[in-house]
This record gives sequence, C-alpha cells and structure tokens, in this order.
Amino acid sequence: MKDVYAVIMAGGRGERFWPLSTDQLTKPFIPLLGPKSLIQEAVDRLHPLIPNERTLISIGKVHEEVARAQLPMIPPENFIIEPIGRDTSACLAFCALHLERRDQDSMLLALPADHFVGDPEAYRRTLAKGIENLPGTNGIVFGITPERPETGYGYIQAEKPTEASAAWPVTRFVEKPDAVKAAEYIKSGTYFWNSGIFLWQNRVLLELFRLHMPQTHERLCKLRSLLSRSGVDDEIFQVFSSIERISIDFGIMEKAGGFGLIPANFGWDDIGSWAALARALPADENANIFQGSHAAVDANGCIVYSDKGLIAVFGASDLVVVQAKGNVLVCPKDRASDLKRLIRALDQPLATK
Amino acid sequence: MKDVYAVIMAGGRGERFWPLSTDQLTKPFIPLLGPKSLIQEAVDRLHPLIPNERTLISIGKVHEEVARAQLPMIPPENFIIEPIGRDTSACLAFCALHLERRDQDSMLLALPADHFVGDPEAYRRTLAKGIENLPGTNGIVFGITPERPETGYGYIQAEKPTEASAAWPVTRFVEKPDAVKAAEYIKSGTYFWNSGIFLWQNRVLLELFRLHMPQTHERLCKLRSLLSRSGVDDEIFQVFSSIERISIDFGIMEKAGGFGLIPANFGWDDIGSWAALARALPADENANIFQGSHAAVDANGCIVYSDKGLIAVFGASDLVVVQAKGNVLVCPKDRASDLKRLIRALDQPLATK
Repeated sequence: MKDVYAVIMAGGRGERFWPLSTDQLTKPFIPLLGPKSLIQEAVDRLHPLIPNERTLISIGKVHEEVARAQLPMIPPENFIIEPIGRDTSACLAFCALHLERRDQDSMLLALPADHFVGDPEAYRRTLAKGIENLPGTNGIVFGITPERPETGYGYIQAEKPTEASAAWPVTRFVEKPDAVKAAEYIKSGTYFWNSGIFLWQNRVLLELFRLHMPQTHERLCKLRSLLSRSGVDDEIFQVFSSIERISIDFGIMEKAGGFGLIPANFGWDDIGSWAALARALPADENANIFQGSHAAVDANGCIVYSDKGLIAVFGASDLVVVQAKGNVLVCPKDRASDLKRLIRALDQPLATK
Repeated sequence: MKDVYAVIMAGGRGERFWPLSTDQLTKPFIPLLGPKSLIQEAVDRLHPLIPNERTLISIGKVHEEVARAQLPMIPPENFIIEPIGRDTSACLAFCALHLERRDQDSMLLALPADHFVGDPEAYRRTLAKGIENLPGTNGIVFGITPERPETGYGYIQAEKPTEASAAWPVTRFVEKPDAVKAAEYIKSGTYFWNSGIFLWQNRVLLELFRLHMPQTHERLCKLRSLLSRSGVDDEIFQVFSSIERISIDFGIMEKAGGFGLIPANFGWDDIGSWAALARALPADENANIFQGSHAAVDANGCIVYSDKGLIAVFGASDLVVVQAKGNVLVCPKDRASDLKRLIRALDQPLATK
C-alpha cells in the first residue's frame, strides 16, 4: 500500500461542542472520549496500514500550532495549511495538488478528523479492502451499515455485488432523509450512511474536478503553478479564496458516477453533538454519562462534562450540562444537535468569553 | 432610641446557596442581590434608626475575618464571636450577656442577617413602632402581612387591637402549615409570617430564659461570671457548647406569653433558596432571572447566576443554573429548596470542591 496517502481533514468550526470547542480549539483537537484527542486517535488507528510519513494533516492557519504540538510524529512537511476555509471540495483539491508534487501515482484517502471508531482493526481491514477495489472505479466510498433510522446523516444507495470481496456499485447519494424514509432505507439493505471517508487515485480526483467543477479546476491550474514558486502566499490566498464553497459530496460525488462502495462495520459514529457522547461512552445505572468531576442526585439520562470543577445535577432529566474553559452550557439532550442556533446568538467570533 | 441595640445574627451553614455559599462564606456575606452583601445591606438599612455604634454582629469564628472585612464601619468590640453554633436561643442569650455588661437598661433587637427588604424606610418605621410599643409587653415580634399561602414559613396569630397605633396581642406561634391551612391563615387576616425579627428589653429576655429555659439560664449564670474574667476561652467554650441547641422560637417565644405583634409590610423575603431570587430580582420577558454573564435562547423561567464565566441556557425551562467558585449546580426550580439533600451527598465538610 505504499502509494496510499491519508489526508486527515481537521478544518471546520468549533460550534457543536461549545463551550469545550471554540474556533481556536475545534473538535478534532479535544480529548472528548479519552486521554487522546480525536485527531491523535485518527492518526494512530491508521497504523500499520498507513505510516505517519504518508499521513497528511489538512488544517486552517488558526489550528496549526495545536496540530503540530499534538502530532509531533507527523513530518513537518505533511501539514497542509489551507489559506482559508472553503469546505471539503477546495480542501481536498488543495491536498491533491500537494500530493501530485510528491508522488505522481498516488492514492488519496480522505478521512474526517473527528470520528469515533470502536474497532480500529476492522477499520483498517475495511480501508484495505477499499484500496484493493479501487482499480476500475472513479473512487471508493465507505458506507456504514446503518444501525438505526438516523435522520442526521446522508445515505448512499448501492447494488449488492455477486462477489463478496467486490465493491458495491454506487447508485446514488441521498440527502438527510426524514424518519419515514430513513426507516425504508434501513429495511432495504442497500442504503448506507455516508461516512465521508473516500478514496481516489489522486490523478482521477483532479480529473473529476476538471469534469464536474470546471471553474474550480481553472483555479487549481493557477494554484499548481503558484505552488512551484515561493513568496507567493498572497496570490495563493487570492486564488484559493475565490474557489466555490461546497462540499466534495455536492461538488463531485453526487454528480460523477463510477464509484464503488465498501460496506463498513467498525463501530463508527461522527460524534456530532454533546448528546452523541452517550453512544460512545459508558452510562451509569441511571443512564447518565459523566466526564470529569460530578455529583448527581435524582439525575437521569443526563450528559455531564466538566474540564475542571464540580458539576452537581439534582433532580434533572435528559439534560446536557457542560463546564469547559470557565463557561457553562445547559440544554436538553434533544436540542444539543441544534447548538448552532445558540452559538449564532453569542457574539462573533466564536471563542471563550 | 439610644438604648436600642441591634443584634444582626449571621451564624448558620452555607447550604442553600451552594455552590456560591459554603460553610466559609455563608449567605449573609454574599452580594446575592446587588453590589453589597446581605449583611452590609442589613447594617445600612438600620441607619439612621440605629447607628453602627449600637449594632452588634453575632458570628461564628469561621466568619470573623470576612465579617470584619465587610463591615469596617462597625466598632471592633461589636463583633460577638460565638464559641460554637448552638442555634438562635444560645446565640441571643450570649448577646444578651454581652449587652448587659455594656448597658444595664438596653433593648435588644434581634435581626437575621440574610433577609431581603424592599422598602427600608417602611422597615425603619415599623421597627420604631415596635420600640414604642415595647413597654408593658414581654417583647415585640414583627409579623409580615402574608402575600401568598406560603408553606415554607412559620406563622404568628394575633388579635387586632382597637387602636391602630397599638401592637397586636400575640395569640400563638404556629409551625409551617400545609397549603390548606396556609390558605385559611391568609383569609383570616389575623395570621402573620414569623419574620424572626424580635425586640426585648434585654433584662426581660434574660428573665424569660430563667423562666422557660432554666437549664440554659444556669449556663448563662456561669458564662456571666466567666465573661468578667480573661484567659478563660476554653471554659467559655465548654459551658457554651453544653447549651441546648434550639431556636429562640421553640425555646422561648412559643412558651412565654405577653408578646405584642407589629404588622409589617416592607417587601420582606428571607431569600431561602436560589428559586427565591425570582421574587427579589427583576425578570426578563421570558421570566428568566439573570445575574452575571449569560446567554439564553429559548429559555423560560430559569434562574441563572454566574460569578465568573458565561452560562448559556438553550431550550430549557424552570431550571436553576449556578456557576460559582468554579463549581456548577443544575436543578429544577421546584427542587431548589431541597438542596440540602444534594449537599449531604457531597463530601463533608461543605466547601468548594
């Protein structure tokens, strides 16, 4: 697998885990589930499939210091600093440009930095199977076998192949469904959660940009020539910031065909909100989840996280209570995924106040 | 009124306002309702009726430093340090002994330190009326005209006098009633809330101890002789700590007769719990009470107090959320008066953890 490079994407804002996450310290850099941060876990779980030398870290300028500090095992030249956040299509295009300068014949494995993976060995087996099946496709997507009629994820429909070892030909990508549709999807057995983990031959990915995002591809050609020069950071910034802000799913994957899907079952969760911690952490006998110093009397189904100081919950049910960086969040569990609404009400920029 | 001495009682534990209050910093010493602490307000609102020179502060050893620091205007010799907490009967008896050494012919006005008074001028007028009516009684009690069928307070029944300027002869003291009885009390027009504010001729108070708490009176006689000597702190402690632990209400007021009641309407509240703040502080348009840095989206009827750092409440109703001294409390408003249950579950002694 010496031609496979992992790109761990750790851009994005720190909204969903406020007050623990901020724009300066976003979810990937937080030890949400244990002693290591999510991005440290993401790097570790690639071993021995992909070594640190072929692991690239895509981040914004604001995260560079913390990323380098948390990942001293990653070679310094493997940190790819995005000039500005422009969603995943620009992010991956920029990484593809960097990668073609290093290795003309490489594969690019795109990995979000903030996932929970319960079974790292199954994870590596699944990725390896994807790499094996890449030839003859436009790319491989990893589809999580759905465990519940989740309405918070996008789905991918694919056809079951005759051979168990083969990838499933992708039929279509579908948006977050309503509950009724989600239930149908699960029943069908041919729908998977879109994990956001993708694999392409690097030159094929760039070709997909040419075909499906021609305006972006134009900018990529300019950037390619700029990247071979030095002292042109301002020009790079100018060109990069004019790239369309769109996810790789919308920009490429939903438009192009020829993708193969590898079904995945490695205890995946995208830990999208405080409430999702309940799926990844053990609960007490009253279904409470605790991280940090706490006291609970007559508390049920609460998620309590403290980075310092005691949180006492008394006579409360199904609340998220977080104390982090000296700030406190209290909201019902079923509102936690909507936290952006609260964040919008706080003063910008999003930071510890 | 030169013979009236106020005794502001500030003993007691810091349970009901945890985590802001602790055994080291109890409710009277906290600026719960504004820039001044409750005890500072209690001293201030006596002016000009009773000057600082005749205001005594009764506290435990553990509060001496903070009390002296907060009340530099009170003469040092006016701080009466209780050897150990033994409820209000021992507290007031000890103060009466101190007072008789200063002024044989004085009156003792007992004031809890932690009350809210909305109308200080009416407060002073009411106290003055009590002082006028003291002669010919065993003591004056100040009865709050009830505003609601409160089940959390004791009541005092009294007979309406023919003269408006006279005190109402007290019929009886009654325990905290149930809701049905409380409603009857209110309707009758002859029941008042027991404010815990009492006035006696100091020598009469000591005589009441002799008649109704003879064992305590024996100890008082020993203490009287010890107080005239120096270097006998240990003996004072021994004798004081053997005094029965009982409130002045149970020990004296419910047993003795001959008390007069002055009806009081000065916006009184005993601010007994976090939830009671809602009666003393202004609410926003969604009935939320905020003190300190906060953000609220879709929050209703919440009480939010932060001594530092932001508290964000999102989509929650009728919660008490407090951040103080680095610790956090979350509980429904209707459980706030039962906070002792939570405190018992925390490690002893009660302190910032």
